[in-house]
Amino acid sequence: MTLTQPGAIAALRFAEGKLYALDQTGLPWREEELELASAAAVTQAIRRLAIRGAPLIGVAAGYGVALELLREAGGDRRQTLERACTLLRDARPTAVNLARAVDRVRGAALDAPPGRAATAALEEARAIEAEEEAASSAIATRGAELLGGARRILTHCNTGALAAPGRGTAFAVLSELASAGGLEDVLVCETRPLLQGARLTVLEMARAQIPHRLVTDAAAPGLIASGRVDAVIVGCDRVAANGDVANKVGTYPLALAAREASIPFVVAGPSSSIDPACPSGAAIEIEERGADEVRNAAGQPLTLAETDCLNPAFDVTPASLVSALVTERRIVTPVDRQSLAALLEE
Amino acid sequence: MTLTQPGAIAALRFAEGKLYALDQTGLPWREEELELASAAAVTQAIRRLAIRGAPLIGVAAGYGVALELLREAGGDRRQTLERACTLLRDARPTAVNLARAVDRVRGAALDAPPGRAATAALEEARAIEAEEEAASSAIATRGAELLGGARRILTHCNTGALAAPGRGTAFAVLSELASAGGLEDVLVCETRPLLQGARLTVLEMARAQIPHRLVTDAAAPGLIASGRVDAVIVGCDRVAANGDVANKVGTYPLALAAREASIPFVVAGPSSSIDPACPSGAAIEIEERGADEVRNAAGQPLTLAETDCLNPAFDVTPASLVSALVTERRIVTPVDRQSLAALLEE
Repeated sequence: MTLTQPGAIAALRFAEGKLYALDQTGLPWREEELELASAAAVTQAIRRLAIRGAPLIGVAAGYGVALELLREAGGDRRQTLERACTLLRDARPTAVNLARAVDRVRGAALDAPPGRAATAALEEARAIEAEEEAASSAIATRGAELLGGARRILTHCNTGALAAPGRGTAFAVLSELASAGGLEDVLVCETRPLLQGARLTVLEMARAQIPHRLVTDAAAPGLIASGRVDAVIVGCDRVAANGDVANKVGTYPLALAAREASIPFVVAGPSSSIDPACPSGAAIEIEERGADEVRNAAGQPLTLAETDCLNPAFDVTPASLVSALVTERRIVTPVDRQSLAALLEE
Repeated sequence: MTLTQPGAIAALRFAEGKLYALDQTGLPWREEELELASAAAVTQAIRRLAIRGAPLIGVAAGYGVALELLREAGGDRRQTLERACTLLRDARPTAVNLARAVDRVRGAALDAPPGRAATAALEEARAIEAEEEAASSAIATRGAELLGGARRILTHCNTGALAAPGRGTAFAVLSELASAGGLEDVLVCETRPLLQGARLTVLEMARAQIPHRLVTDAAAPGLIASGRVDAVIVGCDRVAANGDVANKVGTYPLALAAREASIPFVVAGPSSSIDPACPSGAAIEIEERGADEVRNAAGQPLTLAETDCLNPAFDVTPASLVSALVTERRIVTPVDRQSLAALLEE
């Protein structure tokens, strides 16, 4: 991509035995591609958020497993496979897509005939990517039907092509609504500490020529209360079996404010984000990241250097606050244990 | 003050016909004192938040009126007075303390015998400062009684000696609790966009040796929901007659989260923050500030340079979410039209 020109963003591409990833930590100012040749390199890129977004880290981790089998010449494949899977699965704890993709690619490698493990793993990683891309399109269509009447929508974090194959999740819905001419104003939360809204969503909005304004995370609930927002739409990192949603920190206050203002609070994500093994939000491990992320913004110190910080990367929104979950299969509403179980059985 | 040493902070001092103010925009890195010799200079310092905090801008504006009368040699005092009052009253719209202090000092000047207007104005400005300082002490004592059982408290923005004469408002309560040995952990919201939490409250907490951790504004509601906070305490810029509270943007989501978690949401402020002429929060003018504050943090760009932003400086918390209002007179609970009217009649 060229940052200043409209057009599709390629966050990941697999070519000639390597995974190439846009280094998202430098955006929107520096456009650099990382060349990743091992599971360790992919793990490191995920840890430092060079690759991020729940569906995208799933796809990247899938390729990471395949990479490790492809580069191995003659070693113990089983040991290589398990080591790569453990490494990648532990890269970040909250999004379920990551562990799920690793398990799928691992399974494909284990089921493959002798000598075909690496090829099977790569095919499975490619299949996951293709499925996520198809899911993005379906989510866009369904979400736009659901939110057709909303002209002023608020969103959080980044859920576009930098977060998921295709056009993303919540961003794909906004993009679809904008294409139909129905969007007047998108309020984008900056999403401290790592500013995925200010750095990434603003970039994607500008490239897609969607009308948008940046707001601080602190301002969003008050703006919702003041009647300036028709609906809120966000992505998700994990949906528990009861419908509780773990998503980027700062999502929960938006859901509270949406309920107070009687506007829809919509979650968009592939059905692969639903984790039937996780009974409720209380069982979701919330990643806590380093203090330096809070002490700084875009590399600039904001406080005294020795200040202690608490930095959860996600929060949990109870299912009762979620108006609808837009998946590639269909829209789920209300969101609860029964409705999610029914979706997963289809 | 010397930033690295514990001790009292002098945010404002009047000496030899001039107002000296610590330039809060440079904190915690640069300690510079501004010399303000006119109402225009005070207005400018308030506008750019070199002087900030509802009670403090009231006191500063009071001195600003007096300054203008003191510097005048022979001109039309009445015209000078009215011009200074208009200028200062319009410096910032949301906090009621500012207009109220200006009106008090104006009244004192108008009521003074011939030739005594400047002296009377200065005496009134000094009286307002002394009253706010006494209010701070009383708020500290009453608030600490109310919150004696809370060991882990979350606060927003800056409400200490940099925001109000004496020890401040909400900060004074935390300081009192800490002195009694009852505080385990204070979570300080960074308070984007201008980072009064990260820059000012962290500085005051460090100097007062109160245990504290910095959190992003986005993280605070989720941390409250996760059971890590016993109470929330904030200051106020204006309390409407029905108890709705305008305070620094990002206060409202804390109040929503506190109600969900069944923990107290306490507002601390002098009774001069209550505006009986303002029927409800809907009637409070919410200042909207420039986009550059959102586009940058501590001078560092966070997004594309041309990004449009929406930047309300305050939000409104409905009275129904406020557990108690701690004033210098007494604690008001519940907070509603009747209880506030009763307080003001005492």
